[in-house]
Amino acid sequence: MIESIIILSGGMDSTVLLAKQIAQNIQIAALSFDYGSKHNRRELPLAAGACKNYGVPHRIIELPFINQLFKSSLLQSGQAVPNGRYDAGNMKKTVVPFRNGILMAIAVGYAESLDAKCVLIGSHSGDHFIYPDCRPEFNSAFSRAAQLGTGGKVSVEFPFSDMDKRQIGDLGRSLDVDYTRTWTCYKGANVHCGVCSACDERKYALRHDEGKDPTSYAE
Amino acid sequence: MIESIIILSGGMDSTVLLAKQIAQNIQIAALSFDYGSKHNRRELPLAAGACKNYGVPHRIIELPFINQLFKSSLLQSGQAVPNGRYDAGNMKKTVVPFRNGILMAIAVGYAESLDAKCVLIGSHSGDHFIYPDCRPEFNSAFSRAAQLGTGGKVSVEFPFSDMDKRQIGDLGRSLDVDYTRTWTCYKGANVHCGVCSACDERKYALRHDEGKDPTSYAE
Repeated sequence: MIESIIILSGGMDSTVLLAKQIAQNIQIAALSFDYGSKHNRRELPLAAGACKNYGVPHRIIELPFINQLFKSSLLQSGQAVPNGRYDAGNMKKTVVPFRNGILMAIAVGYAESLDAKCVLIGSHSGDHFIYPDCRPEFNSAFSRAAQLGTGGKVSVEFPFSDMDKRQIGDLGRSLDVDYTRTWTCYKGANVHCGVCSACDERKYALRHDEGKDPTSYAE
Repeated sequence: MIESIIILSGGMDSTVLLAKQIAQNIQIAALSFDYGSKHNRRELPLAAGACKNYGVPHRIIELPFINQLFKSSLLQSGQAVPNGRYDAGNMKKTVVPFRNGILMAIAVGYAESLDAKCVLIGSHSGDHFIYPDCRPEFNSAFSRAAQLGTGGKVSVEFPFSDMDKRQIGDLGRSLDVDYTRTWTCYKGANVHCGVCSACDERKYALRHDEGKDPTSYAE
């Protein structure tokens, strides 16, 4: 009996969220999405590896229409990902329109099909000011829509909604998450670039300046 | 400049809704979904034909994971569609979990990508008591989530939310909709079966008993 479905990207946030559920003995299944982002090819094998490691059932759903029809520099069809700090000016171009709404809607339907009561997603407070579909007021509205649209069967929960990425990094370290087996860089090359805004935030989260970040960066 | 995206199944409700937008000179694009229902193969060519007829841009998005992973008698992977009246007992098995939530979420992201301000869907009051994701309270919650998740750029509207299917049928007749070019039967054979609950409701809507229904039924 599966209690919860986790949306697992293979990034550090969702991998820590998975580790937390495992530590709490929650019966969980994982759902990943290949929506044609530049870094999907790096993330998805790591998501699969984490599930294998923890013995968690895992499905990858392909959404090729997002890369074909949507506009974002995060997508393979989009322009280059900008370098620089993780701030609104730089990051706006990486918004994939309503991405979290789409991924959560699919996960809600899948959860109802498996009689699972809950969908978990690892969006956090650092995402809020850039991505409208990560903000607390969106999360509340979507969770309410999920409850109503499933006749009360499925809720969506955001356990990291009040945490920033460094707090998530520290939590994962306490749960023995191997961060070398998680991916963050938006450019999706063979190693983390170290200079895009996502790498910038990863360094902050993993306390790179304190020598605690095990990631290999190109720069 | 596209103003609105319509979710077009090729059924009578969404086809009437499309005709209404055309009559109002709304610049519109249509989005259809092949999610593996038994009647998609009948509906989708009719959706494409309506768009060609009205000169409306049209995309069909394939969602094969719904048929593979979700449970519903409406799906090709599901059990037989029940015969009988369009009531809750018979129809519950035809619920595709959170289907409208998924379709609307994708349409919202697509609308934002095209700078369209609005997503239209033809769900109506007759659907409410069976399908939780057609009820007014779900519609309101989802519309709010769409607004928040797109930073206020996209809203979802439900123009038929307060109408029943017969009112929609009458409206379409006044707009010269050719109902022989719309599909309703859940069984998806070569002609409408005439005995499933969806056909039962179509007969009511098109005033079959008054001799106004142009549909050919097997029974």
